[in-house]
Amino acid sequence: MNFKEFKEKWTPIVDDYLKGHLTSEVSDKKISQIMSYSVMAGGKRLRPLLFLATLDALKVKINEEEVRIASGIELIHTYSLIHDDLPAMDNDDYRRGKLTSHKKWGEAEAILAGDALLPMGIEWISDGSNSVKLVKIITQAVGPNGMVGGQYLDIDSTNNDSVANNSAFINKMEWLKTGCLIKACVAMAVEYGNADSSQKKTLIQFAENFGRSYQIYDDLVDVVETSAEAGKKTHKDLESGKNNTLTLLGVSRSRKELTDLMLDAQNCLKSIDATVLAGFLDLYKKVL
Amino acid sequence: MNFKEFKEKWTPIVDDYLKGHLTSEVSDKKISQIMSYSVMAGGKRLRPLLFLATLDALKVKINEEEVRIASGIELIHTYSLIHDDLPAMDNDDYRRGKLTSHKKWGEAEAILAGDALLPMGIEWISDGSNSVKLVKIITQAVGPNGMVGGQYLDIDSTNNDSVANNSAFINKMEWLKTGCLIKACVAMAVEYGNADSSQKKTLIQFAENFGRSYQIYDDLVDVVETSAEAGKKTHKDLESGKNNTLTLLGVSRSRKELTDLMLDAQNCLKSIDATVLAGFLDLYKKVL
Repeated sequence: MNFKEFKEKWTPIVDDYLKGHLTSEVSDKKISQIMSYSVMAGGKRLRPLLFLATLDALKVKINEEEVRIASGIELIHTYSLIHDDLPAMDNDDYRRGKLTSHKKWGEAEAILAGDALLPMGIEWISDGSNSVKLVKIITQAVGPNGMVGGQYLDIDSTNNDSVANNSAFINKMEWLKTGCLIKACVAMAVEYGNADSSQKKTLIQFAENFGRSYQIYDDLVDVVETSAEAGKKTHKDLESGKNNTLTLLGVSRSRKELTDLMLDAQNCLKSIDATVLAGFLDLYKKVL
Repeated sequence: MNFKEFKEKWTPIVDDYLKGHLTSEVSDKKISQIMSYSVMAGGKRLRPLLFLATLDALKVKINEEEVRIASGIELIHTYSLIHDDLPAMDNDDYRRGKLTSHKKWGEAEAILAGDALLPMGIEWISDGSNSVKLVKIITQAVGPNGMVGGQYLDIDSTNNDSVANNSAFINKMEWLKTGCLIKACVAMAVEYGNADSSQKKTLIQFAENFGRSYQIYDDLVDVVETSAEAGKKTHKDLESGKNNTLTLLGVSRSRKELTDLMLDAQNCLKSIDATVLAGFLDLYKKVL
């Protein structure tokens, strides 16, 4: 099975699971509706698919437990988007072509929708895996030494010229903000699928390259795509004073950096039969 | 050991654990400082002590693992206070006699401090217990069917006269907002301490009475104490259009309700040797 077939098989299954369980497992209809609005807003399900594709590379059969873990990851990712879009943070009105949660439902409602999605996501991961090791991986990846730490550095450094040329700082911030959760998707699958030490090394290296490159890709989308294509406001990083790899290196050197990381990620997968995982890198073609 | 001795023994141990580990386990000094500011703002450590006192009733020896779980609960409680105080929520400037997180550090910083404390709290509970059952209890207690659900009903019903006389709605909202997490402290100890079915029944009943009564107590503090005594703005529930047991029943009937629940909670503990737990109810004397 190639990436496209894998994606076409599992995306609707994850979508159905999310939709069904956000209805059946949240007792208040209105909160359920607010949570579902953002979760079902047409995301690519990249992180759940990455978890499932890593299991596939490890020959683990995917059943409902594995789909529950994958869907839990998406709940957590969605929480992070809702909070990132808040007026006090990036203040975005549109996401995936729809009004952001706070524009649609109100600011308190958006904060609470995020606050509800995070523990529920961890619950699903814990339930599906029955493993405190997976709980450790996910809580660390999204905590102060992971995603939230990166978001803090982003907020703290916006409009701060002193870090504009500090590539170590920018690398660290982007890694924490985006890379940590992506790596965790693979790391959870590696743990869950009982990978041997060689598989583990290979897959984690792939995840680190993919996680690092994904933020550069996302920054490039901001300048290469129109708002209609991206489903959110684009060309805004520079005007809002954001410091990132793109503002540091410019478009052509960012593309070069992305290409290099992509090749490194491809090389990681040479020793393992992982056609589906390799297909994730094709995503980058649209900005190269 | 009585409640006062127990409290005096364990409060500084929990305080030291929180202070030390928020420094050693959060790599970015500034985020660590923002998180610590609210966690170390002088809370009573009621929920950690309740967890530890329940273990004590079950004759479980308290070591570092148990203190890690107890401290994890306090991280989660602190996250909920930081988010509740936000301008979009209750918009409070003071908490425990100090500026609230968003007044001190900024709104984005306060949102992120909460977002960092929640997963770290779950991580500590998971680490200390090595039990997915405890992860299940805590994530459910603070998710959309627990604390966040209650907070949503609170926000949604503020200045909504149609629920002002709806005691079922108010009971439900207050239970979710406050009772669920309090019950979870006892439920986690019951699970962790391998309580037998009779101990479990007794302790959970106590927790339900205590959890329900605690919100009534907290509402009474709002009218009975001055701002200086409470360390936060008081007399504000009525003026801000909040609906709660107090606005429903008035002061004297709320006191009667609190007394009844207190007696029920005392009765629950008759069959078990739980001097320390019984001492939690003395807290209410200052509003009765």
